[in-house]
Amino acid sequence: MATPESSKPHASAPRYELLTLGDELLLGLTANGHLTFIGQELGRRGVLLQRNVTITDEADAIAAQFRESWSKADVVITTGGLGPTCDDRTREVLAQALGQQLVLDPGIEQTIADRFARINRKMTPNNLKQAYRFKLGAVLPNANGTAPGLWVEQDGKVLIMLPGPPNEMQPMFTEQVLPRLAALGLLREGEAYVQLRTAGVGESMLETRFQPIFDRWPGLGIAYCAHQWQVDCRISSPDGRYPMTALRALAGECTALLGDDFVCYGHDSLAQVVADQLRQAGRTLAVAESCTGGLLANSFTDICGASKFFQGGIVSYSNDAKMLLLDCPECLLSQHGAVSPECAVAMATGVAEQLGADFGVAITGFAGPTGGNGENPVGTIYIGLHAPGGAWSRKLSYPGPRCAVKQRSVTAAIDWLRRDIMREARKVAAPLAN
Amino acid sequence: MATPESSKPHASAPRYELLTLGDELLLGLTANGHLTFIGQELGRRGVLLQRNVTITDEADAIAAQFRESWSKADVVITTGGLGPTCDDRTREVLAQALGQQLVLDPGIEQTIADRFARINRKMTPNNLKQAYRFKLGAVLPNANGTAPGLWVEQDGKVLIMLPGPPNEMQPMFTEQVLPRLAALGLLREGEAYVQLRTAGVGESMLETRFQPIFDRWPGLGIAYCAHQWQVDCRISSPDGRYPMTALRALAGECTALLGDDFVCYGHDSLAQVVADQLRQAGRTLAVAESCTGGLLANSFTDICGASKFFQGGIVSYSNDAKMLLLDCPECLLSQHGAVSPECAVAMATGVAEQLGADFGVAITGFAGPTGGNGENPVGTIYIGLHAPGGAWSRKLSYPGPRCAVKQRSVTAAIDWLRRDIMREARKVAAPLAN
Repeated sequence: MATPESSKPHASAPRYELLTLGDELLLGLTANGHLTFIGQELGRRGVLLQRNVTITDEADAIAAQFRESWSKADVVITTGGLGPTCDDRTREVLAQALGQQLVLDPGIEQTIADRFARINRKMTPNNLKQAYRFKLGAVLPNANGTAPGLWVEQDGKVLIMLPGPPNEMQPMFTEQVLPRLAALGLLREGEAYVQLRTAGVGESMLETRFQPIFDRWPGLGIAYCAHQWQVDCRISSPDGRYPMTALRALAGECTALLGDDFVCYGHDSLAQVVADQLRQAGRTLAVAESCTGGLLANSFTDICGASKFFQGGIVSYSNDAKMLLLDCPECLLSQHGAVSPECAVAMATGVAEQLGADFGVAITGFAGPTGGNGENPVGTIYIGLHAPGGAWSRKLSYPGPRCAVKQRSVTAAIDWLRRDIMREARKVAAPLAN
Repeated sequence: MATPESSKPHASAPRYELLTLGDELLLGLTANGHLTFIGQELGRRGVLLQRNVTITDEADAIAAQFRESWSKADVVITTGGLGPTCDDRTREVLAQALGQQLVLDPGIEQTIADRFARINRKMTPNNLKQAYRFKLGAVLPNANGTAPGLWVEQDGKVLIMLPGPPNEMQPMFTEQVLPRLAALGLLREGEAYVQLRTAGVGESMLETRFQPIFDRWPGLGIAYCAHQWQVDCRISSPDGRYPMTALRALAGECTALLGDDFVCYGHDSLAQVVADQLRQAGRTLAVAESCTGGLLANSFTDICGASKFFQGGIVSYSNDAKMLLLDCPECLLSQHGAVSPECAVAMATGVAEQLGADFGVAITGFAGPTGGNGENPVGTIYIGLHAPGGAWSRKLSYPGPRCAVKQRSVTAAIDWLRRDIMREARKVAAPLAN
């Protein structure tokens, strides 16, 4: 077990709280991406957000929660409730809580009017609400929307009010908020932890493998995080007794234990890691999907510069599409069915040949909740891999909801490709040893 | 403006709080999908979750927050911290806070051992932690993982502890937690609001259009929510003065104002709405994607039964792929380029013809952050639509981060398809009027 101290912040570390406002969050109509984004940005800079509270749009609830957070925290960040409609109350409620006046800012008003003119929409009177700022405070201009952010320093603390839409909030946070916080000394310098990203090992097995190493380092901060069927292990030194160089050496010892189960340091996605491998090796990829229906292709095309290695993909939902676009033989489909190892290999080879790619990855299966048969129930997935060294398939079984089966199949397919590229690279590097 | 009462819960409504535990949430390593899921499930049953607090894994923080929430709420739900590793502390901390003993449950232990045997992994000793339950409380079996949920009734309140992995928590919540809460009378019967989903209208414009109607209904609860470039409007009667039939009639008045900007009542995605339209009309769809790289296909294949209408998709990232798989003429590509109205139409028609579909939708553009040219900067998207009534293209301009451009382009493409199917249906219904 980690020592109780291991997750406590420095005595001197400022306390950050995030208030995310909006009934739409509490009703699950929209995901709380603000926590994910702000938590990650702060975490990378050595700040562990201490609390995130999501409350209703009700004025009393906002005021009560803000007072409590303001009394405890050094920095309070709010998101949402700055918009033009009647359920947007943050600006007014927080001004009252801090005893501040709101003043109409003609500069903001003009910017909003200009924005409406540019996108050729009529500015309705309720938009004027957004042109008010705290009398004692700064304005954080919003390049991507109407409501600017607001920055207030008072009582030796900082209040930062940010708009709700992520495409407005995120650039405002990285470009304006982080530099201001750093200038006030409220963010620690440099990275504060080493993260190992792994695949193919469960959380408890990973802890069991690592613990003998960690036992030699008293006071280490260790956190495991399982997500998307991968496990991350984050290593830090909460009381600062180990420098980053020592943590990196320790992490190196852990990765040596892991072999190919080690994916990368940091936060890169599996698809990003494979993209880097492919670009480095000058290899190209094409994908064929049945049950994952575009999610595999989408994982790669989320990466900027994907066109350097990604030739394209085929979503062959019907048997006709498999024959027509992937050259899957009709007799193969009728003998073995579309959910079979034979079809997975034929799809992988077919898409690689059609698109002239070095690697072809195919996924076929029953994502559910309907479909499936005795031999291959819902959740049965076959992955096909066509590589320079040969073509194979693998059977997987992932019972679960449709979208989870899709995501898990994609993760497994990308991880298999990653391991094969590494295996191939080792062969090239040491041909006699293999 | 809505009256201040409009978002207050019934005096008699039970207060729900959700505590989501885990440094990984606060560090943004994983998204807080629990809030989205639980908030939505409760919201549909008439409960507005009053607060969601995310705190660190630290024992003191968990204990302090739990005591505060327990003193205020009628139902406290926790997620996370039930796993096998040293940063999983929920069970132990909450037992202490409630003065309860933890007892080893041989039934849970056996279930965990069986599960490990079934997936052919070795059970490590730290897994035993998960076999402890509250002495006075029930166990919520976990069909999809090792840690069961725990249910405790004490002090006239309910504490529900759920595991962190969504595929474990979600079925446990719908299949076990909701029925138990309903049996205790802690969920209101039936739906509690009417939601209108719209597309193509901004939030402030929507409020401006609706307000004259809402002004005639004092005490209405109105909430707007903009997400994925759509706006939802939720209409409720917080003090219960209007029955659901009245709210539905009011909503009907609103939708009549909206025309084709009205998408649906409730929570269906645009893709789901289009899927229903296509199935109803007996029409089929195929998609061709360049910059959205599989996201459009994925939106449709997330729908169960997509194979009924979705023929397949082609992710043609390279010009070669556009020529080879979509029959885009080489001269067209060299004259107009791949990001052009001509190419969008050729791709839409090409994919519809290749896959024998009634509708073909194509997206081509510069998702950024690199690429683009003077005439077509980053964020320029062309959508092509091949329909029974003809083939057209549209130019869109969405500056923003890559993934946002992809998502927004997909939303616009699906919405255009939706409007065209409606237009076609009206033509069939009233051929002389069009």
